[in-house]
Amino acid sequence: MEFSELIKTATVESVLLSCAGLPAVKGTLCITSHHLLLSSCPGGDAQPGTVELWLLIRNVDAVEKRLTSSSGTITLRCKDLKVLQLEIPGMEECLNIASSIEALSSVDSVMMMYPFFYRPQSLKLEEGWHLFPLEQYFQQIASQVSLEGRDPAAPPPPPPPPPPPPATASPWVKAARSPPSRGVPPVPPGSHCPPSVTPQAMLRSSQPLTGPNRKRCREDEMLLGMVLDEGERGFIIDTRSAQAAKQARMTGGGTEPKSSYPQWRRLHRPLERGRPLQESFIKLVEACNDTSINMDRWLSRLESCRWLSHVKAALSTACLAAQCMDREEASVLVGRGADGTDTTRLVTALAQVILDPSCRTLVGFQGLLEREWIEAGHPFHLRCARSAYSHARLKQEAPLFLLFLDCVWQLSRQFPFSLEFSEHLLLTLFDNAYASAYGTFLCNNEKERCLCKVKESTHSLWAWLNQPGEKKKYLNPLYSPNALVIWPSVEPQSIQLWQGLFFRWIRSSQYLDEAWAEIQRLVQGNDSPVKESAENRLSRSLSDPAARTENER
Amino acid sequence: MEFSELIKTATVESVLLSCAGLPAVKGTLCITSHHLLLSSCPGGDAQPGTVELWLLIRNVDAVEKRLTSSSGTITLRCKDLKVLQLEIPGMEECLNIASSIEALSSVDSVMMMYPFFYRPQSLKLEEGWHLFPLEQYFQQIASQVSLEGRDPAAPPPPPPPPPPPPATASPWVKAARSPPSRGVPPVPPGSHCPPSVTPQAMLRSSQPLTGPNRKRCREDEMLLGMVLDEGERGFIIDTRSAQAAKQARMTGGGTEPKSSYPQWRRLHRPLERGRPLQESFIKLVEACNDTSINMDRWLSRLESCRWLSHVKAALSTACLAAQCMDREEASVLVGRGADGTDTTRLVTALAQVILDPSCRTLVGFQGLLEREWIEAGHPFHLRCARSAYSHARLKQEAPLFLLFLDCVWQLSRQFPFSLEFSEHLLLTLFDNAYASAYGTFLCNNEKERCLCKVKESTHSLWAWLNQPGEKKKYLNPLYSPNALVIWPSVEPQSIQLWQGLFFRWIRSSQYLDEAWAEIQRLVQGNDSPVKESAENRLSRSLSDPAARTENER
Repeated sequence: MEFSELIKTATVESVLLSCAGLPAVKGTLCITSHHLLLSSCPGGDAQPGTVELWLLIRNVDAVEKRLTSSSGTITLRCKDLKVLQLEIPGMEECLNIASSIEALSSVDSVMMMYPFFYRPQSLKLEEGWHLFPLEQYFQQIASQVSLEGRDPAAPPPPPPPPPPPPATASPWVKAARSPPSRGVPPVPPGSHCPPSVTPQAMLRSSQPLTGPNRKRCREDEMLLGMVLDEGERGFIIDTRSAQAAKQARMTGGGTEPKSSYPQWRRLHRPLERGRPLQESFIKLVEACNDTSINMDRWLSRLESCRWLSHVKAALSTACLAAQCMDREEASVLVGRGADGTDTTRLVTALAQVILDPSCRTLVGFQGLLEREWIEAGHPFHLRCARSAYSHARLKQEAPLFLLFLDCVWQLSRQFPFSLEFSEHLLLTLFDNAYASAYGTFLCNNEKERCLCKVKESTHSLWAWLNQPGEKKKYLNPLYSPNALVIWPSVEPQSIQLWQGLFFRWIRSSQYLDEAWAEIQRLVQGNDSPVKESAENRLSRSLSDPAARTENER
Repeated sequence: MEFSELIKTATVESVLLSCAGLPAVKGTLCITSHHLLLSSCPGGDAQPGTVELWLLIRNVDAVEKRLTSSSGTITLRCKDLKVLQLEIPGMEECLNIASSIEALSSVDSVMMMYPFFYRPQSLKLEEGWHLFPLEQYFQQIASQVSLEGRDPAAPPPPPPPPPPPPATASPWVKAARSPPSRGVPPVPPGSHCPPSVTPQAMLRSSQPLTGPNRKRCREDEMLLGMVLDEGERGFIIDTRSAQAAKQARMTGGGTEPKSSYPQWRRLHRPLERGRPLQESFIKLVEACNDTSINMDRWLSRLESCRWLSHVKAALSTACLAAQCMDREEASVLVGRGADGTDTTRLVTALAQVILDPSCRTLVGFQGLLEREWIEAGHPFHLRCARSAYSHARLKQEAPLFLLFLDCVWQLSRQFPFSLEFSEHLLLTLFDNAYASAYGTFLCNNEKERCLCKVKESTHSLWAWLNQPGEKKKYLNPLYSPNALVIWPSVEPQSIQLWQGLFFRWIRSSQYLDEAWAEIQRLVQGNDSPVKESAENRLSRSLSDPAARTENER
């Protein structure tokens, strides 16, 4: 396939671009293989030829067109929730532009995506891919709990690059792969437990395949038995409801029989996933964009979309897991039904941010994402294929990663000193998970990434973020390391809507951004040794061509 | 009456005091004429004799008791929304303490209240009472619009002190007093309109008394006619619904007949007042205190209490008034039915904060409160007699002033640089309006204040707040004067619940307070000339005996 075949009209003059809250601009619209550009016309207020829009076409979630006899309006709804309107003279041009954008934004082949073509001068291709070696991390755990294993969905990561071996490794990994299966990548207890105490393990798994005949699996029992010494207790946090766990038994799944796991206690904390979660996201974005509703209707839609309930449930369950480890000094296995990774990942990753100060630094948080989400095989390509505006409604979409980021934002709001990174990082991660110039969030697992040679042929987002000039944009100026566990309030009254994400393109946050910039300026002026300054988030993007992953006008 | 008659038991040993989110303390409870004190027992963690509680009894809104055979628990629900529990050994002592608090907190005679007894060493009695001379302010307006007048509910303020004259002053004031009546204290357009333009007037009035026969009042027509030159337009913003205005006609009130006011256009923007507003406040506080509800129920109760709708409606109407003046260059009369002051005051005061930068300074805001709320005769004694917890449910209670403070808080959140004062000032004003050591919010109007000799016998809150050491606690460290009109977003999605007020005593805001203090420290370290630093709000009160108006433990 050639991109040029998909571009029916490459250039249109006198296109009017408008975007909520900003003055409209007229200019020349160009479509390239990966970008939509609008350069303002000479004679306007702006410098002639100024690029007013630089939009990654992959970012387009939905294209809507309205035609009159002589012109047409295209509304582009983006995956980062931005909405743009293009008024295009000429009906045919309008139709061509719309169908070109539709075709280019729907290219499904990973290797045709922009990361495989993006070559910024300031970075080298190999940079950033090996910042967080999983082997090293697992060795550290192995020395702590004398147990090794790995999620079966996530084969060992390169280097070296060749596709991963099928079923090698230790007997425990093998045991974890045969039914009743549990994928068990243990997560270290981190510095929240004093070194004198035996560290507790946090584990993640899919469901045991006990089925209607209540089969047992000796290997699984042994595996979990090994985690606990005599007299120690463990908790299994099942992210399904008790009812759903029962139903799963009919199709071969189920729960561990109590008698075979005498030291483990099961707790059910149902978390939403899959389609209902995607619908919740879609409904919330619809409500946020509805500027004509009154207060009652807004609150009632906020309630009925249930997004805040999902945030609360995820945070509560993560707190429960953290409490079991920190207060009960017990080990925890977070498990669930069927393919068993989405909600367990959410809970274990969040629990680590709550428990472990090293996960709250800029680099530590990147390591956590790499380990718990990317290398452990969260299927980003399937889950983030479309965002809240798409009419496609694919079956595998679900904003699990966004829910995780939202929960981390709630933590950052309740603990303004304890996270080294700012909201800006969370927004950047959301944007890049859905459409990116970098290869970090491409594909569904390490195997696919190996096959596509992602690490050889694309740049790593971490390499970009960790450049000194870039890095400081993502730092929290108020950060001051906090060695304690951060216990968030999870009462409904404490959970707030993430305005910075859901209203980013609807309402100007100019004053709040300026307040933030002022605080950053003050910190800089103060030369406080523990703090590094960060620049005003408004200054990014347009002035810096390398940042043109997605552009705001 | 002697206070000692009301105090049945003055001292009880071994009382356990508990308060949400704080460790319980045991100590000796004392009741004085105006305060409830608890000094911790020797042997506890604290210094023996440390005062752990210093509560103004007037602050108590509701007393609830639960008895067992040998002891009892008293729950004190305060007007500032704090909730305290006292476990008292001995049933009789418990009953005595409860009835003493009930009696002392219900003393209705103004001159028996604490401000008449409070004599801080750092202040003189006469200080602060004449900071904002109304005459001077009106003269300034008179020179601008050649029109004078005053709300009939607010007789001219002293000095000199004798009770105000009955019906003197200019013919316009007289006209405004005879039916159909309009109280017309014009509010100056302020610096939002360039000096070359004829300034527009903002006026406030009650309803015209046209009645079912559609009477006319020449004086009223002339008065309003004088505001506008030929060709100029005016808007009458009626804070009743069109339906309510129609109904009012049956009881002698009504609306101005269109034909007699050719230059004026009437707009209806209904605002809630009286009992429904008080109920809304009560329901909101109930929902905030309910820690057992889930997210759906919380959002549904937030919706059904309608508080945020009232905030939105008040802000929208103030924006409309401000828009009429600033964008349409028209004069505005804000009017309503019946006693006609509560909601008009809310709208005109808010519109001034939006339009006029001088109302956004610490001193300017005090002047606005003095002029628009206190001297103009908002009946604080009736409206703020009881807060959200009282079972009394008096007819005249309504949290109009709280609604105003909440709207100002929304402005401060949307414009973090434009207000010189911080949230701390708004909280202090709320506390003092309901229970205070100062005389500023006592009584219902100037006449009552004169009769009670409030200005001679009590201290002014402004004198206290404006002391250099105190003042800096109320400043916004990010303030940078903004000469422009501040147009808030009034979409439902932009209106937030005022967590700092409604959750002040429910949830620790320690980290947010510390973040604020850190910003203040940074500003101080930076020695920025336009900015003064303010101290951590947590450091006030207990360490500073003069600040013991209301105390947090």
